Amino acid sequence: MTANPDRTDFREAMAHLPAAVNILTTDGPGGRCGITVSAVCSVTDDPPTVLVCVNRSSASHDIFSGNRRVCVNVLGGRHEELAMHFAGATKVPMVERFAWDIWDPQEPVPVLRDALVNIVGTIRDRKSMGSHSVMFVEVESVRVRTGDSSLVYFNRRFHRLESQ
Amino acid sequence: MTANPDRTDFREAMAHLPAAVNILTTDGPGGRCGITVSAVCSVTDDPPTVLVCVNRSSASHDIFSGNRRVCVNVLGGRHEELAMHFAGATKVPMVERFAWDIWDPQEPVPVLRDALVNIVGTIRDRKSMGSHSVMFVEVESVRVRTGDSSLVYFNRRFHRLESQ
Repeated sequence: MTANPDRTDFREAMAHLPAAVNILTTDGPGGRCGITVSAVCSVTDDPPTVLVCVNRSSASHDIFSGNRRVCVNVLGGRHEELAMHFAGATKVPMVERFAWDIWDPQEPVPVLRDALVNIVGTIRDRKSMGSHSVMFVEVESVRVRTGDSSLVYFNRRFHRLESQ
Repeated sequence: MTANPDRTDFREAMAHLPAAVNILTTDGPGGRCGITVSAVCSVTDDPPTVLVCVNRSSASHDIFSGNRRVCVNVLGGRHEELAMHFAGATKVPMVERFAWDIWDPQEPVPVLRDALVNIVGTIRDRKSMGSHSVMFVEVESVRVRTGDSSLVYFNRRFHRLESQ
C-alpha cells in the first residue's frame, strides 16, 4: 500500500474506478450550460435522490447551483464524441453544442434525446468538500432507453458496455 | 419522460447507471464486517476523499460509522462470486468470509489482496439522506493493480471490463 498518497497516486487510484459518463446540463436565470461528469451516484429512493460532484473552480459550478434545475444525461456507448465536447476537449463553444438537434425542445432543461438515461431534478442540498461541491438532486422525472449500451470511463479510456 | 417516478421507475433508471462493484470493509471496536456497495465516487484530491453511500437500515451501517476506519476494495473482473458473498446472496457467514486466505494480514482493516484498487481511509463526515448515509472517507493509503480488468454492474448484471 502507498501511504499518504500524493495527488498523482490518488488520481491513479481513481482512474481505476470504472464510472458512468454523464453530461450534466441546466438552463435558467444563470444561463444554459453542460459539462461531462463521472461522479454521479444513486443515494436514496425516498425521496428519489442522486448526487453529482462538481469542481467549484469550474465556471459552470455557479450556474448549476444558481439555476438548481438540472438534468443528468447518462451517456450511451455511441456518445464518446459528445462526452469530449462537454469535457471542453474540442473547444466547440457552449452555444453551438446546444444548437445541435440532439436535445428535446419541450423540456425546461437540456435533455439529450437519445441518452441511455435522463434524470431531471432540482438541487435540494449541497456540501462543499475540498475542491468540489457534492450536489444532491431530488429527481422529478426519468426516462430510460432499455437495451442501449452504456459508456464507461476506466483507465483513462472510454469503453462501450453492452446491456446484455 | 416519466414524471414523479415511483420507486420502481427510479430503480429502473438507477439500474442503467453503470457502476464499479466494491466491497466496503472495516474492523475495530464495533467488530469486523464487509458489504458489497456500488455507490462509491471520488470527491476531491485535497484532501484525497471518496464518498460511499450505505443503507442506514443495514446492520453493518453502525459498525462502519462506529469504527470509522474502512477499506474500499474495488473489485476486479474475477470477483463476481465474492461480490455475491458480500451482498449476502449466498448466506455464507461473515466470520467465514474473513477466514478465507484472500486478505492482507498486516493491515488494520480487511484489505482484499488482489483487488483492482484498495483505498484505506477514515470516515471524517457523514450526511443522512433518506434511507442512506453518505460517508466521506479521507484516504490514507491506496494500492492499484494496473492492467487488471474491472467488475461493473449494469442492467442488473455483472460485466467484466478489460483495462485496454
